Amino acid sequence: MTNLSSLIRNVPDFPKPGIQFKDITTLIQDARGFHQAIDQMVAVYAGEKINCLVGVEARGFIFASAMAWQMGVGMALVRKPGKLPAATLSESFSLEYGQDALEIHSDALAANSKVVIVDDLLATGGTMLAAVRLVERLQAKVVGCSFLIELDRLGGRQVLQGYRVESLLHYFDSE
Amino acid sequence: MTNLSSLIRNVPDFPKPGIQFKDITTLIQDARGFHQAIDQMVAVYAGEKINCLVGVEARGFIFASAMAWQMGVGMALVRKPGKLPAATLSESFSLEYGQDALEIHSDALAANSKVVIVDDLLATGGTMLAAVRLVERLQAKVVGCSFLIELDRLGGRQVLQGYRVESLLHYFDSE
Repeated sequence: MTNLSSLIRNVPDFPKPGIQFKDITTLIQDARGFHQAIDQMVAVYAGEKINCLVGVEARGFIFASAMAWQMGVGMALVRKPGKLPAATLSESFSLEYGQDALEIHSDALAANSKVVIVDDLLATGGTMLAAVRLVERLQAKVVGCSFLIELDRLGGRQVLQGYRVESLLHYFDSE
Repeated sequence: MTNLSSLIRNVPDFPKPGIQFKDITTLIQDARGFHQAIDQMVAVYAGEKINCLVGVEARGFIFASAMAWQMGVGMALVRKPGKLPAATLSESFSLEYGQDALEIHSDALAANSKVVIVDDLLATGGTMLAAVRLVERLQAKVVGCSFLIELDRLGGRQVLQGYRVESLLHYFDSE
């Protein structure tokens, strides 16, 4: 087994001073690390019925796609505004400075389908909560929210209270 | 076998009037269509030594990731400026109006590694040519440029002359 944490690169002061950015590119470039990470992210749902994965733009696409491939299901996209070409639902959320929004195609998920939403990293949870709301507005059921990395001190897990949160790697030292 | 073309949604006048946008989200939401597309995109490299896939932001990540998973290799990212946290190389290219650029981490690929670059759609080829140049500046070898969709009238294949171009679906009717 590869030590996945050893494949995550810490980049100080990105995107701004004081942030210790967790760079996942060094993990996915490593064939064994990438495959082990996907295997482990999929394994927590073993024996459960999942109909579709949802990937959150942009790094979430990487993990959602390989997981969907391994699980034998399709995937839907949650994207930044203006990127999805057909009719969408939109959900706004607060950032440290200002607001952002995410969109999903109105026909992306079947009602009552069982969905896992995937992103690379859980920080404050605002992005994932917006994705959860989009999925629920389509009448689909959120089985879990899966991340490669969770920054434990930022409270994302509390923001997602009531939802199953699965993270492979935990960090305590980031802002 | 699923007819993959039937899973591509045509969205007229997106992102601007006159463009017939080829929406791949309806294909990847379909489990069988998604898996068949990835299988076929991988199959053209059967028996060849590939060390790494390169995904072009953002929809390219979807196809590169599942292909990398199936091929048992890792993947590297070509991203828009400012998204990659560590040291990068940058390559500018022309758009219909103005310029854009793409970046790759300076340590993303080993010298002499054999690489397939993946994006969802080949149009004028400017984006893929910039990605090719980034890969070659890292001394890696471009084995092929793979797309789900090629818009044949836009000349991308000519722009990529000298490189192997693999596309699953061809459209003649788009701007």
